[in-house]
Amino acid sequence: MARIAVVAGDGIGPEVVGQARKVIDAVLPGVEATEYDLGAARYHRTGEVLPDSVLTELAGHDAILLGAVGDPTVPPGVLERGLLLKLRFAFDQYVNLRPSRLWPGVAGPLANVKPGEVDLVVVREGTEGLYAGAGGSLHRDTPAEVATEESLNTRHGVERVIRDAFARARRRERRKVTLVHKTNVLTHAGSLWARAFEAVAAEHPDVTTEYQHVDAAAMFLVTQPQRYDVVVTDNLFGDILTDIAAAVTGGIGLAASGCINPEGRYPSMFEPVHGSAPDIAGKGVADPVAAVLSAALLIDQLGHADAAARVTAAVATELASRTPGVPLRTEEVGDRLAGYAVA
Amino acid sequence: MARIAVVAGDGIGPEVVGQARKVIDAVLPGVEATEYDLGAARYHRTGEVLPDSVLTELAGHDAILLGAVGDPTVPPGVLERGLLLKLRFAFDQYVNLRPSRLWPGVAGPLANVKPGEVDLVVVREGTEGLYAGAGGSLHRDTPAEVATEESLNTRHGVERVIRDAFARARRRERRKVTLVHKTNVLTHAGSLWARAFEAVAAEHPDVTTEYQHVDAAAMFLVTQPQRYDVVVTDNLFGDILTDIAAAVTGGIGLAASGCINPEGRYPSMFEPVHGSAPDIAGKGVADPVAAVLSAALLIDQLGHADAAARVTAAVATELASRTPGVPLRTEEVGDRLAGYAVA
Ligand SMILES: CC(C)[C@H](C(=O)O)[C@@H](O)C(=O)O
Ligand SMILES: CC(C)[C@H](C(=O)O)[C@@H](O)C(=O)O
Repeated sequence: MARIAVVAGDGIGPEVVGQARKVIDAVLPGVEATEYDLGAARYHRTGEVLPDSVLTELAGHDAILLGAVGDPTVPPGVLERGLLLKLRFAFDQYVNLRPSRLWPGVAGPLANVKPGEVDLVVVREGTEGLYAGAGGSLHRDTPAEVATEESLNTRHGVERVIRDAFARARRRERRKVTLVHKTNVLTHAGSLWARAFEAVAAEHPDVTTEYQHVDAAAMFLVTQPQRYDVVVTDNLFGDILTDIAAAVTGGIGLAASGCINPEGRYPSMFEPVHGSAPDIAGKGVADPVAAVLSAALLIDQLGHADAAARVTAAVATELASRTPGVPLRTEEVGDRLAGYAVA
Repeated sequence: MARIAVVAGDGIGPEVVGQARKVIDAVLPGVEATEYDLGAARYHRTGEVLPDSVLTELAGHDAILLGAVGDPTVPPGVLERGLLLKLRFAFDQYVNLRPSRLWPGVAGPLANVKPGEVDLVVVREGTEGLYAGAGGSLHRDTPAEVATEESLNTRHGVERVIRDAFARARRRERRKVTLVHKTNVLTHAGSLWARAFEAVAAEHPDVTTEYQHVDAAAMFLVTQPQRYDVVVTDNLFGDILTDIAAAVTGGIGLAASGCINPEGRYPSMFEPVHGSAPDIAGKGVADPVAAVLSAALLIDQLGHADAAARVTAAVATELASRTPGVPLRTEEVGDRLAGYAVA
């Protein structure tokens, strides 16, 4: 049976992860879960973000389920660079997968978009670009200060994530891949992405392709999100576009993500897109749907496509039966979802 | 009287610029306008993008009115880098000003946002960041290819645009400035922006401030655009966020922009955010509102705040009186706007 590592984290992390585990246990009984204490709380208590020994232990698991890490009391970058991004890079999670669906029962913000009409997935590059950490500064705190951030892009890194996007498109009905970049300004990286995209597209004559600049894509995600099927893009563009996609499909409260190492050489990591939401933590009112959808991605990655589909269907049932305005209880939602998934 | 340079450009550029000039002539009779032939058409005819002699002539004007340049037949980057960005950099247009309002009469895409509720302006940095052109590639067209893009940020460049944003906020009712960056990942540039922002904020105790990561801001522009007053951000983030702001307020067809050198050492440049729209060019059906709103920014920059306000009010009248579904004629809209503006 699969062995997963669980990082519940801070704020509402433990609450929503609790429900995700309920659902995993329901559809895949016998999965072995080990908890790891990482995040703002541990950082404050011990000064540690991600000890090497923990990194090594995590590497021995089949997948990682993460709730949320972070707290306003931790300086920006400490947990992001030291924990989340460190795991993405150390475990070569080059596919940052972010599906967005406008579920029946969910009131999205767009007047002219009906539930069921949006069903897209962003395949965001996860190990390169401006996230490489290649920046610096000079003359800090003087009028002469200069600060740089460098986007690093390799043919290796770009081509492999584009291949993943095409492989995913082939398993979907519309079989369409949109490349998003900013080739008219970022001419070097843009050209690399465009040439790699063309080369992979040529091997997939059964997949429809298009290209959009990131500003246009940001706009079309608002005016016509229906037009997208699979979107492949760079790390930072993907960060921004997936939050827009989440916003137009009901908010990050429903958005799941997977940081995937497709070859399985390292564990993949699954986490809701929402943060630790300290304001509502501990009250039992956080919506666990994003965590449970992330668990569905995890279950799929472990090779159990049927069980994953049952979890996704359970979420659809749950969302379709909600009455707007009625407050939810985290535990009850988790119980219902586990029940639907095995029914 | 002021002397302006007019670059009508390609596609619908000449049509919409024609109406903007009508309106300028109506409210500021006697403005001297000189036309310059730049854009895709000239590039195809002569191979020239922006001859040095033209750059020098443009520098002698009080402002530049630009329609739209570009055509799918020109390789990506040629006109963007060679013309638009060259002008922004050569004329040190460090304030890229992009107001967004949801005008009464305009049906925006958001179900819960009413006309009149959104009135924000993005102050986008215009001369630094990833637009600096500091990138390159190695081992091109081999599996070992690497491509870089470098974001360059100086205290000089960051502080001056933040100062401009605070000055604008002071002239507005809500007096609020939101800094948008990605300090948790782009730690060097992010820290420079955050420290410069804090320093300028400390000099403006009458202005409310907040900070948001770019992904969160992209989301909130969709879910709560009402919350923004003045947004100050870096060049690339501004590019993306202003297209989202345009999308939620009725589309880039209504979006105006100014590339401003506030000190007036060089001419500022004003252009609609939309492109050359070759598909509808020459048919007399393009909406000139974005060009006319850009002209209003130009008129304001020339020091005629009252005339600018009359043009903006004319646009409000025009938009409020449109019947949805009734096709418009470019010339007729221009005539009406000129009429309203002098009434
Ligand atoms: C927390 C942060 C480092 C992260 C990112 O920028 O990737 C987050 O925004 C996300 O999208 O997962
Ligand atoms: C055409 C392009 C260079 C430009 C930009 O990226 O600034 C455009 O998108 C804009 O927003 O004015």
